[in-house]
Amino acid sequence: MNTATTRGRDPASLRRDNLRALLRHLHLHGPTSRAELCEITGLTRSAIAGLVGELADRGLALEGPTSQPPTGRGRPPIIVSPHEDQAYVLAVAVEVDTIRISRVGFGGTVLAETRTAHDYAPGDPQRSVQQLTELLREWTHPSGTPPIGLGVAVPALVRAADGRIMRAPNLGWQHLSLGDELRRATGLPEPVVVGNEARLAALAEQRRGAGRECGDLVYVSADVGVGGGILTGDQVLTGHTGYGGEIGHMITNPGGRECHCGARGCWETEIGADALLRISGAPAPQDRHAALDDLLARAERGDEDALTAFRELVRPVALGLVNLVNVFNPERIILGGLLEPMLRHTGTQLESALAGLRGLPEVPLDLRPAQLGDHAPLLGAAEAAVNHFLARFE
Amino acid sequence: MNTATTRGRDPASLRRDNLRALLRHLHLHGPTSRAELCEITGLTRSAIAGLVGELADRGLALEGPTSQPPTGRGRPPIIVSPHEDQAYVLAVAVEVDTIRISRVGFGGTVLAETRTAHDYAPGDPQRSVQQLTELLREWTHPSGTPPIGLGVAVPALVRAADGRIMRAPNLGWQHLSLGDELRRATGLPEPVVVGNEARLAALAEQRRGAGRECGDLVYVSADVGVGGGILTGDQVLTGHTGYGGEIGHMITNPGGRECHCGARGCWETEIGADALLRISGAPAPQDRHAALDDLLARAERGDEDALTAFRELVRPVALGLVNLVNVFNPERIILGGLLEPMLRHTGTQLESALAGLRGLPEVPLDLRPAQLGDHAPLLGAAEAAVNHFLARFE
Repeated sequence: MNTATTRGRDPASLRRDNLRALLRHLHLHGPTSRAELCEITGLTRSAIAGLVGELADRGLALEGPTSQPPTGRGRPPIIVSPHEDQAYVLAVAVEVDTIRISRVGFGGTVLAETRTAHDYAPGDPQRSVQQLTELLREWTHPSGTPPIGLGVAVPALVRAADGRIMRAPNLGWQHLSLGDELRRATGLPEPVVVGNEARLAALAEQRRGAGRECGDLVYVSADVGVGGGILTGDQVLTGHTGYGGEIGHMITNPGGRECHCGARGCWETEIGADALLRISGAPAPQDRHAALDDLLARAERGDEDALTAFRELVRPVALGLVNLVNVFNPERIILGGLLEPMLRHTGTQLESALAGLRGLPEVPLDLRPAQLGDHAPLLGAAEAAVNHFLARFE
Repeated sequence: MNTATTRGRDPASLRRDNLRALLRHLHLHGPTSRAELCEITGLTRSAIAGLVGELADRGLALEGPTSQPPTGRGRPPIIVSPHEDQAYVLAVAVEVDTIRISRVGFGGTVLAETRTAHDYAPGDPQRSVQQLTELLREWTHPSGTPPIGLGVAVPALVRAADGRIMRAPNLGWQHLSLGDELRRATGLPEPVVVGNEARLAALAEQRRGAGRECGDLVYVSADVGVGGGILTGDQVLTGHTGYGGEIGHMITNPGGRECHCGARGCWETEIGADALLRISGAPAPQDRHAALDDLLARAERGDEDALTAFRELVRPVALGLVNLVNVFNPERIILGGLLEPMLRHTGTQLESALAGLRGLPEVPLDLRPAQLGDHAPLLGAAEAAVNHFLARFE
């Protein structure tokens, strides 16, 4: 149902598309024999040899014999691998308290990762820009080879057209062209791709986590906020201006509490960390994170009060999930953040609650815990940086 | 973010893709000069001449000089048009009471359309299959030229993998392979594409109605049921098994009435025809359709009680729309069925209600009345049939 027209094709653009297809395959599936690449692309052995040669010359692929013992029949296969030491992306995830940064090889291997305190000052985004600039400079490959892409995950509404941060409530940032500022400040050749952390986490779970091979996926992560990312037809849903996927602001309880966004009864107010702490009977805690860590630890130990709090979260969680199931008909729903322990602690209760709430049994339901934990936004930023590299690859 | 690999390309597959691109353009945009086709496709004049010649030979395109007076400079442009008399699809929309059928030319012109009583008997889908078979035979081109595609719109959950009707609550049909049965019975060469009426209506509004040029679109139509169709990135959202878009079964009022689906507080129970009649204070009517027609007519005449009923529908409508806006970030929301007069009668009240309910003002909002009325499912069935033809075109 795509209404776009395809442009006429010349040999150079065909060659570029074939190179991109090879790169994408190597990134997603890792080392692959030349014979398999012929199989996958439909190209001849000599065409593959030529294309792989070009990728090797450009520092993106490596070729070598397999390390497996020969089978005794014919020549040993030649294996093509992503050149992950040479070709890498830098990924950053920004939170109020911390900044994570990692160097991820082309092919998806995390080569190095660290977590550092965010030198954050309210109302002073330039201070953060400066810290990020220093980190990116420091993390550029010791040999000086620049990254093939840079990605930054932020808890923010990010405009699709230009990557501008329109609003990051927790950070207090508004109208910040973070990507452009970092590029200018670092002097690195590649643009910096900025994305919403939950959308990027969804991409990471699909590529490297609990959603592999799923083209239609809903990812929900609850913490203080409730974020989400949706893939339909193998594409991250961004919507018209980039804000698609704000599932934390579905109104699931019209008579509910006021949300920080100004609306009332948003899913976020019903199932986020504050809701869980409220349900658990904790008096409004001074340190929300400490109270939450305590509650989680108690639940792990089997403390009945803590488990009861998780059980009471089941119905409001199910009320939002029903909507997502009926609207998206996803192949899989991945639950992250607080919902991951909730799924473990409440067993089949969530599925029972869903069965009681939903009236379309034809729509399948497959709930899975997230696999990447709080690394997901960082890994997603790396995947988005690779996507950007591939889309611009000539 | 597409993870698929593109296959290596040979000249024949390139030629096929270029032919498909030309056909798609002619279908969507109508008569186009050869010079414009060169511009659009990036192909040379001689390549376009060859491709158009093939389409003409196959009865899909016509060439001729423009009917506009010559400008006096150079040769008059040669105009390529879809050959709508020769190449056509048959489209059918099935309801409990009626069956509509139309012959739609390649290019989108409705050549003929009729509406006939559905010879419906509960529990006897074969009776309907027989009537549909006769209609399709009768509506095949008088010259005997078979249609290039056939599409059927049904109020049903339709499985994506094989077009099987899993459940059509109003018709009482379950597990009916309507498309296969019709193909077998009619002996027509092309498969019969079966789709959910609201999803097809959304496609029609995007192609020929209120959603032109919108790649990210939400269509909501309320009648007895509430159906919807969503386009993201120019694709109709089908979800993993074909049931994506069941927005009538979002739970927008967890404490609400029981829905016919078995759940409680579905949007359909809050804003469908029964809700409107209930709000209007009408005692449970014997004839729901007559009562609805009466209410609509009174509202058109400015009857204050009828208008009040529409005004009271505004908040429950807004509660569902907020979710769709925040989840999909659509470029446009198209309101059909009862929501179309509601939008007219309540003026800016709906936008005010939405402004009061939603907390993310960055997400744009553009509400429009549907343009195709109850022809939309039929026109969508025709568009789906053309899509299917293009996807299989060799």
